[in-house]
Parts: sequence; structure tokens; C-alpha cells
Amino acid sequence: MEIYLDNSATTKVCREAADAMMDMLTNNYGNPSSIHKKGTEASRALENARSALSDALSCSKEEVYFTPGGTAGNNTAIFGAAALNKRRGNRIITTSIEHPSVNEAMKRLESQGFEIIRLKTDINGAFSPQELINAVNSNTILISIMAVNNEIGTINPVNSIKTAVKRTNCPALIHVDAVQAFGKVPLNPEKAGIDLMTASAHKIHGPKGVGALYVRKGVKLPPYIVGGGQEKGLVSGTEGMPAIIGFGAAVKALPDLNREYSEIKKIRDYFISEVTKIGGVHINSSHDSLPYIINMSVLGIPSQTMVNALSEQGIYVSAGSACKRGHRSEVLTAIGLDPKRIDSAIRISLSRYTSKSDMDQVVKAVNSIVMRIRR
Amino acid sequence: MEIYLDNSATTKVCREAADAMMDMLTNNYGNPSSIHKKGTEASRALENARSALSDALSCSKEEVYFTPGGTAGNNTAIFGAAALNKRRGNRIITTSIEHPSVNEAMKRLESQGFEIIRLKTDINGAFSPQELINAVNSNTILISIMAVNNEIGTINPVNSIKTAVKRTNCPALIHVDAVQAFGKVPLNPEKAGIDLMTASAHKIHGPKGVGALYVRKGVKLPPYIVGGGQEKGLVSGTEGMPAIIGFGAAVKALPDLNREYSEIKKIRDYFISEVTKIGGVHINSSHDSLPYIINMSVLGIPSQTMVNALSEQGIYVSAGSACKRGHRSEVLTAIGLDPKRIDSAIRISLSRYTSKSDMDQVVKAVNSIVMRIRR
Repeated sequence: MEIYLDNSATTKVCREAADAMMDMLTNNYGNPSSIHKKGTEASRALENARSALSDALSCSKEEVYFTPGGTAGNNTAIFGAAALNKRRGNRIITTSIEHPSVNEAMKRLESQGFEIIRLKTDINGAFSPQELINAVNSNTILISIMAVNNEIGTINPVNSIKTAVKRTNCPALIHVDAVQAFGKVPLNPEKAGIDLMTASAHKIHGPKGVGALYVRKGVKLPPYIVGGGQEKGLVSGTEGMPAIIGFGAAVKALPDLNREYSEIKKIRDYFISEVTKIGGVHINSSHDSLPYIINMSVLGIPSQTMVNALSEQGIYVSAGSACKRGHRSEVLTAIGLDPKRIDSAIRISLSRYTSKSDMDQVVKAVNSIVMRIRR
Repeated sequence: MEIYLDNSATTKVCREAADAMMDMLTNNYGNPSSIHKKGTEASRALENARSALSDALSCSKEEVYFTPGGTAGNNTAIFGAAALNKRRGNRIITTSIEHPSVNEAMKRLESQGFEIIRLKTDINGAFSPQELINAVNSNTILISIMAVNNEIGTINPVNSIKTAVKRTNCPALIHVDAVQAFGKVPLNPEKAGIDLMTASAHKIHGPKGVGALYVRKGVKLPPYIVGGGQEKGLVSGTEGMPAIIGFGAAVKALPDLNREYSEIKKIRDYFISEVTKIGGVHINSSHDSLPYIINMSVLGIPSQTMVNALSEQGIYVSAGSACKRGHRSEVLTAIGLDPKRIDSAIRISLSRYTSKSDMDQVVKAVNSIVMRIRR
């Protein structure tokens, strides 16, 4: 038995993506920059993949740039926005529960003299929209807020950031790290007034090693990685074709998002009603968070003990995020969760391949582990 | 008929690499940072790939870092070295015929106040070792020189850079862009006193979208891409597993380098002896350049015309490098080649899959194109 429930860390590549990649590796292996037939064929495949992304984001193809992944995308967006606007102001607003690829970029900018305002959140990971509005001043050059938190699933009101910006005449660009949201909730950056948006393939059954950055038309983002000028100069380096084409195929293979969302929600709600029957189990994700992500604590059983015990039974979940292995969760600390719950927190993250009976197995397994350890 | 002779732009992925990647996509798809079984299995595959690289570079596994590609590797090395040493000096030495991923990084550093010394080269692309020695002063913090030029194949004496550094007490790190050399000539950075060395998978029948950076033990290179701290903090972002594993497999599948080199040299010499019988054909690569790369001009026939005409016959070569599509070659300009030869230059780049009879076909095709166009 293998039940993979660590889909917010990474997902199994879907058949469509794997097949498309195989063709790129062994057949359509040209360099898209080459002008001969082998190059133009690869270039066509590249643009097809780009169309898949622009369709999914309801934007134009010219606004989609492929990156080496979500982290490189967030770095490109944040360092680029800071470089672009540094003469116009130095305040950057973000939240206290961003992904490390945003967080660490902010720390670097802080050390360079930028003023970083980190919005505090409540126990559910939600920041106060009024605090955001209060924080925006004429000196603000960038607002970077994640769409969905990777550890607890908080859904942020990223569509209303624009309102906060409008009230001052500040030059702030709006960046949204949508790595956990893309492919799960409908996104329309143009409609929401978002300037920069990051997505990643390997969270939606595409391959690891590729992401996309939406850059609103008219935003002249300077490159972070420099070189041969690929991706219209924004992301240099020979395009990572097999992964890019796998990304395009995975996007095309996405199901109807709203339907899948409500199916996952049913499974999530069922699971919570069952698992909380076990003594000491607390759900750390709020009811209106993304149903794909369930953060919960089994009091008295350290996260790693539980992860390992479940792994032995072929059930794969995570202790916090996979991205900062071995560290105490900064997100759970930032939302003010009781340390006892932090130390026993696990994240169960679902995918379209997750069934109700998988979740029954998890309840059974958690229960047996609790019985064994508490005995 | 398809004869692919643009192997310095990119290569066909070998069967070993494609098979290994397929397994990573559909089976061993975990995130190496995850602590459950699916994660530790992926982590083991990652470290196996790293071993393949460290074996090939005769270095320790701890000195090999995976990057999103050669360009990201060169950026990480150069920006990292500059950040590390900026308090100790501001002179950086490079050559006038580096790849854009080095060149553009140097331009950015120049705009930040670093002094960039670009060594001039002769018509063969060779710089004067004495000029290098003269350029190194106590203020020098980095020397970045490519091992093999990507357009004309010049082999640089990178093993003797250390000698130039030794004579002053400067803190210079030595970086070698070995993207065109790796997998073709034996490299031993430690023995050569090289601190940083860049390699790429897709030039050696591995996939596009992954590279490696050798960082000599003891060199505390700061990261360029920041985030979750993967690759011991140097290259953040979930590891691009399918491509990394393909890279490892491609390295393991490399033939005996010296034997292949001499075989390619025979094919190259034979081709040159035949093709130069056609009137107006001039070889721009020197005799002692890397035999995998043949840069030649067919006077009176513009590069793109020749590339397209050959492409129509199923023969794929390049007009200069694939990396700066549509621009007049900066390398051929820098070495001082006659403009007539620059405008008619094509690059034919060989691989282990190239046969003597392939090259006979090229001679025949070039001849027929010359006859048709000149008539």
C-alpha cells in the first residue's frame, strides 16, 4: 500500500506530462534558439506550453515567462521589482508567513536598506486588510503576498490588494506567490490588478525544475539571471525544455478546478470529522482554508515520529513544509500556535488522486500509532 | 535523412538519461527534502547523481552543487564571488570571448563599480598568458575564463591560471566556465587550482534545464537564488529531479574521453580536408581547437542562408551560437575575423553519434548549395 499525501511538497507527474517530456527528450530535442528545423520545432513546442499557461491565467502569451521553478520565479519577481523601483521608494510589504523563497529574498533586501513591513496574521494565518491599507504609503514599491499558505492552507484575499494600493499614489507593484494556489483555484491576475504572479509545475502533477512567472504587460522587470537573453531577456539560459513541455501538458490535463475543489472539500471534511474522534487530535487549518491542505496536531506525538510511523505503513505526509527540513515551522510559530501543537503538527496534503478510502486508511493508521505510542 | 550537427547548442538525450528520468517522473517522484520513504528514496537518487558528477570531476561529492543550468551556474559563481570578495578588491579579469552568461554578469558588475579587465585574444581566440599575468594585481578578486569557446572551439590553458594568481597575494578566486569542455576533455579542478567550475547537462546528451557548479571546499560562496536552502543553501528551490537524475545518467554513460576525442579529431580532419576543396570555404577554428566544434565560412553565402539551405536537406548546423539568435557574433568580431567571413560563418558541432559518412553528406550538401547559389 502506498498513499501519497504530501502533494504540497511535490506531486506525482501525470501520464500526459511524462509522455510529452519523453518526446522532447528523444525526438524533439532541438534548442528553441536554433534557426534550423530542429530548433523551430522546439520553439513551437515551447510556445504551445506557454499558451497552456496563458489560457490557465486568462492572460496573453506575452505575459508568461518560464523560470527554473517557483523559487527562481519569486526571486526574479522580488529582486526585479526592487531594482526597478528603488529610486521611487524603499518600503516593501509582505506577510509574516511567506514561503522561504519570498522570506529570504526579503531578508536580503532588508540588509540592503529596504524597509520590509511584515503583516502579522491571526491564528488562521489571515492578515488584517486594514493593516495592509495602513501600511501602504507613498514610499511603497512592492507588495508581495502569497495566495495560499503552503503549511496551513490559508487563502489570502489577493484580489483586494489593488484596492490598498490605489488609495495612495505609490508606485507599488503587486506580486503574488501563487505556487500553492495555481491549478487549485481560478486565478486571473489581470482582473485582480496583480502585476507579478508565480506558479510552479511540480505542485500540479508536472515535473520539478520549472515554474512560470506572470508579468503584466507594461511592467519592465529587469532580469535576475542574465545571459543569452532567453524568455525575452527576463530569464536567461537554454530553456529547460523537457520540464517546460511537461508543465504545459500538466496544465492542459488540469480538471475543472471548481468541481475538483468541492470534491476535495468533501473528502477533507469527512476526514476531519473522523480523525478528530481520536483523542488529542487538533486541526490547525481553518475551515475556510484550501481543502487540499490539512495541518493537524496529534498532541504528545512529535511531528517526525508521526511522519516516520505513517511512512512505515506506506502513508506519506509531512512535518510542516518540505522546504525547510529539520527546522521548527516558522509559519506555525508566526501564527501563534501553542508550541505543543507546533511540535506535533503534521501536514496532510491531498491531490486529485486522493480518495475517501485513502483517508480512511490514514485515520486507521493515526489511531493505531496513537494507541501504540500512548500505551 | 536527419544529420544533427548543432551539438554545441544542445544534444539529443541519450537512452540512459531518458530512461532514468522516466523512472523519476512516474515512480520515484518524492521531494528529496521530505523525511518519509518517498523523500529519502528521491534524496538517494539525488546523491547518486551527485556522485556521478564528482567522479567525473575527480572531486568530492560535497563540492558538487546542482543548478538550473550553465547560465544559472555561471551567475551563481560570478555574482557569488564578487559578493564574497567585494571588500577585498574590485578587479575582475575575464576574456573578450566569454559566453553571454558570463559576459552579461560582468556588465552588471561593471555597472556596480567593479573593474572588469577583458583579455583580448588573437584570431584563434587565444589570449596571451603574459597579459593575464600582467593584469593580476593585489586588487583582483576573480578570474573567470572559459575552458573551451562555444563558437570556435578554442581551448584555453585554464590549468595555468593559478600560476598567474600565485605571483601576487591577491584574494582572487578562479572560475572556469567548462560548459563546452565538460564531457569532452578530462577536467580536474582541484589539481588545476580552480575554485569554481560550471558544467551543463544538455551539451553531453543529458536534458536541458540542469547544470552543476563545482565549488572548492573552503570557498564560502554566498547564494544567488535564495529560499528553502536546498543544495546546502547555495541553490534554493526544489531540486529539478528528473533533469538532475538524467544528468547523472548521462555522465555515467560518457565514453572514454580521450578515445572519443581522437575519433572526433579524425572525423574533423577528414571533413576539413574535403570541405576546403570547395572554393571559398575557410576554416575559422584553429587546428588545435576542440575537434567537436568546426567554425567555417563559405564566402558570399550569408550564415542564415546556409543554415536554412542545409536544414532543408535535414542537416542541422548553426549560425554562430544558438544563444544570441539573430545577433552578429560577438566572438567572431572580438577575435578580429574579416567581416565577410563573420557574415558567412557557420558552426558545425559534432557528437559521439557523428560518423564520417555524415560529414560526407555535409560536404556534398554544402557543395550543391554553393553551386546553386553561385550559379
